[in-house]
Amino acid sequence: MNADFEAIGKTFVQHYYAVFDDKEKRESVAGMYHPTEAMLTFEGQQFQGFEAIKEKMKLIPLDNMMRQLTTIDCQPTIDGGVLVNVVGQLKNHSEHDKVMGFTQTFILKPGNNSFFVHHDIFRLALHNC
Amino acid sequence: MNADFEAIGKTFVQHYYAVFDDKEKRESVAGMYHPTEAMLTFEGQQFQGFEAIKEKMKLIPLDNMMRQLTTIDCQPTIDGGVLVNVVGQLKNHSEHDKVMGFTQTFILKPGNNSFFVHHDIFRLALHNC
Repeated sequence: MNADFEAIGKTFVQHYYAVFDDKEKRESVAGMYHPTEAMLTFEGQQFQGFEAIKEKMKLIPLDNMMRQLTTIDCQPTIDGGVLVNVVGQLKNHSEHDKVMGFTQTFILKPGNNSFFVHHDIFRLALHNC
Repeated sequence: MNADFEAIGKTFVQHYYAVFDDKEKRESVAGMYHPTEAMLTFEGQQFQGFEAIKEKMKLIPLDNMMRQLTTIDCQPTIDGGVLVNVVGQLKNHSEHDKVMGFTQTFILKPGNNSFFVHHDIFRLALHNC
C-alpha cells in the first residue's frame, strides 16, 4: 500500500482537471492514461487505450464550464495504486448558468516513475436538476 | 479479466442494496466485505475490516428511505475483479420527501467462490439540493 495515497489522489485530481478544463490542452490528458490497458467509461460509452481515449477527449462537449469540486475521497489499493472518487459540479456559462452535478472515479497505478490512470468512470448526475 | 464483469457488478449492486435497505438485515452486508482488507469510506469517515464495517452499519442513519438507482457503470480489473460506480437518489419519507443524490463506488474481487467488496466509497451529493 502507498502511505501517500491521499496526497497522490488529490494532487492527481487537481492536475487532471487543470489540463482537462483547458480546451487547448484537453487532448493531452490522454497521456495520463495507461497506453494500452486504460479504460474510460464516459456517460456509459466505453473506450480503451491511449488512441481511443484521445479521440474521445476531442469530442467531449464540456466547453465554457466552471468546475467546482465538492469532495475527493481516496483509498490505497493493495498493488500500490490509489482509488479516487470525485463529486463536484459543472456550471455552464452559456446555458443560463445551469448547474450539473458530476461524479468521476479513477484508479491510478504506479508506472514510469509516476502514476497512470487505469480506470476512469464519469457520470453527470442529471437526475438532480 | 472477467468477461462477465457487467453482470457481476449489476447483480452485486441489486443484492447489496436489497440487504442494506432492510434495516433488520443491514448489519449483514458486512459479510460481503473482505474480512480484513476491505476499506469503507462513508461520508469521509474511514473504516477497515469486517468488525469496523459492521459496527458502522449499525449507526448509519438512512432509515425510512426509498432508493432509486440512476446508473450502474462497471469495468473489469486486471486481477479478475470489477469496478462498479453507482449514481442514484435517496428519498426520505419522514423529511417532506427530501431527495438526496448519492454516489457509491465498489471494487469487487474474487474470493471464496464468490466476490468480496475490497473498496467502498459512499457520498451523498448534497450540493445539488
